[in-house]
Amino acid sequence: MENIKAAIEAHLDDLTKPRGSLGKLETYCVKMAEIQGRVPPKLEKKGIYVFAGDHGIAAEGVSLYPQEVSRQMVLNILAGGAGINALAGGTGWDVTLVDAGVIGEDFPPDNEIKPVCSFVRARIGSGCRNSFKEDALAPEETERALARGKALAQDAADRGLDMTAIGDLGIGNTSTAAAMLVAAGFNIDDMVDRGTGIDDAMLKHKLQVIQGAVKSRNPPKDGRSILQKLGSFDFAMMAGFILGLEGKGIACVLDGFPVSAAAYMAYMINPKVRDWLFAGHLSKVAGHKPLLEHMGLDPIVNLDMRLGEGTGAVIGGHIVELGVRAAREMASFSQGRVSDSEKAEKKY
Amino acid sequence: MENIKAAIEAHLDDLTKPRGSLGKLETYCVKMAEIQGRVPPKLEKKGIYVFAGDHGIAAEGVSLYPQEVSRQMVLNILAGGAGINALAGGTGWDVTLVDAGVIGEDFPPDNEIKPVCSFVRARIGSGCRNSFKEDALAPEETERALARGKALAQDAADRGLDMTAIGDLGIGNTSTAAAMLVAAGFNIDDMVDRGTGIDDAMLKHKLQVIQGAVKSRNPPKDGRSILQKLGSFDFAMMAGFILGLEGKGIACVLDGFPVSAAAYMAYMINPKVRDWLFAGHLSKVAGHKPLLEHMGLDPIVNLDMRLGEGTGAVIGGHIVELGVRAAREMASFSQGRVSDSEKAEKKY
Repeated sequence: MENIKAAIEAHLDDLTKPRGSLGKLETYCVKMAEIQGRVPPKLEKKGIYVFAGDHGIAAEGVSLYPQEVSRQMVLNILAGGAGINALAGGTGWDVTLVDAGVIGEDFPPDNEIKPVCSFVRARIGSGCRNSFKEDALAPEETERALARGKALAQDAADRGLDMTAIGDLGIGNTSTAAAMLVAAGFNIDDMVDRGTGIDDAMLKHKLQVIQGAVKSRNPPKDGRSILQKLGSFDFAMMAGFILGLEGKGIACVLDGFPVSAAAYMAYMINPKVRDWLFAGHLSKVAGHKPLLEHMGLDPIVNLDMRLGEGTGAVIGGHIVELGVRAAREMASFSQGRVSDSEKAEKKY
Repeated sequence: MENIKAAIEAHLDDLTKPRGSLGKLETYCVKMAEIQGRVPPKLEKKGIYVFAGDHGIAAEGVSLYPQEVSRQMVLNILAGGAGINALAGGTGWDVTLVDAGVIGEDFPPDNEIKPVCSFVRARIGSGCRNSFKEDALAPEETERALARGKALAQDAADRGLDMTAIGDLGIGNTSTAAAMLVAAGFNIDDMVDRGTGIDDAMLKHKLQVIQGAVKSRNPPKDGRSILQKLGSFDFAMMAGFILGLEGKGIACVLDGFPVSAAAYMAYMINPKVRDWLFAGHLSKVAGHKPLLEHMGLDPIVNLDMRLGEGTGAVIGGHIVELGVRAAREMASFSQGRVSDSEKAEKKY
């Protein structure tokens, strides 16, 4: 690893630009080289996995949206009309929608819904249970979701992806995310905000629901137990996906607060995951900043977004790609077309 | 204009996402609609103009790089090996290199150098004069450079560009930029930093040179006079370009400190220019932040870059494009596939 770092830094310093002048693009490029063990790194294929799932805790009235919106949003993505379709299209990402367990029946077959993107049917069940009242997942479901996520990481490797990203979709998922993080030791007041425009009374209610869920479930402080008692199918699958990337030389870009909460569970299970993670953006959701700081991840852009679906991740990941592109395409001082100031005689 | 703002906001609020959840992407999209007078706005063709020129003040030893590097960098861009080639390629921009007055002979004809991008030969002269010793430009040269810049704005319109960006290239240009801004009333200590890695002694020398130039030239506080006495061919041409975009419905994305200093001269001549400007990024050069704040421009990304050539502008402009893309490609609540929370019954 030390050799890779030295080699990519030497490579970057030989490019026709003042040293370090590409700033964070160079930092990202170094991380990509370390992930891949390759100098310069490459970034040809990028794929985002949007994990959709329903959250039993939504029954407590913690979101303005009714739960059927999760299913509508899945169909909207499959039809190409969602935010992630537009932004992934503009940044060169392939989209895969993963149904980890949206409420209701199985979705109709592909020949009926004619999805414009890849659609993985990986339902663990029809929405997880309400953690305010009972364990969100059975232990067996947790293991199945983690394993399915790991299988998708293998799928990413089989597809030859150099970079993956994770998006989220599911009514109530910021409440689940907050509950998991409070159980992990974060302060509840840092983790809960108004979400998609709720009022004072509803915010107070949301805080009580989350506090109540954490108190009643009271999981041991390990990622697996927290996912099982307070998590969801989609979050467990995301965690499995992140864990499954170990040793595969594939980067993974996180989206906002819910995805980062799932990543934190993976991080509790295996702190090494940080080595292949990028924080695509800083979301407007209040808890995102302290969470990323705790993992030592520096968000790539800060655009006050809070849409989810991976919309921040695809923007951040595309900027990492630009760093890799510079490293691969720029001419070098060694080629002799441009003089290197480091070797120039000082004029003063 | 009020109608356009209301119409684009209504359009954005009808897209299948929580209101305002695309954050600044929505703000940028509103600005594009106002610039174009079109709802939704469009962004199909983007062109960056990199203005190259030499700065007489470089003779005072304010940069680590010898002046011949400007010419080498021009040839590097024309050969496709510079940072801007890689980053423009990765963000969908056409590159035009404008020789506004690099030191030395005319560049060889296109059939010899075989440029990979557009090359506009618009030399006002072989590098401007040293403002530490005499006026940088003759009044006639200033007018010619402004007019040539305006002609390039017309060229952008003729090419059907929806968005332009400006990049800079020229050894010593941060000193010229700082001198212009100090003459305009900015504090010298806020405007000068180490640039591309100079030491304490050289920094002190740079400050003295800039202070000396401003004192000796002592221009009246108007953009035209400052450009003439302390500016450069490339900066006057950039200012002309920005001014020339008036009424054309074309946005212009600024790069870092030197480009923003030229934009400030245009802003002094006509404060309305702000309406079609975006700040592509916040550069690592210290003076950039107070300068953008003074113009009320909010930088789109902050990646610690300080390369110039337009490398920050193409990244920021691409993010504006993503906002426009979302506005054009996303499904709407009116289509009825997804329920709008604003119309949903409150559950709590």
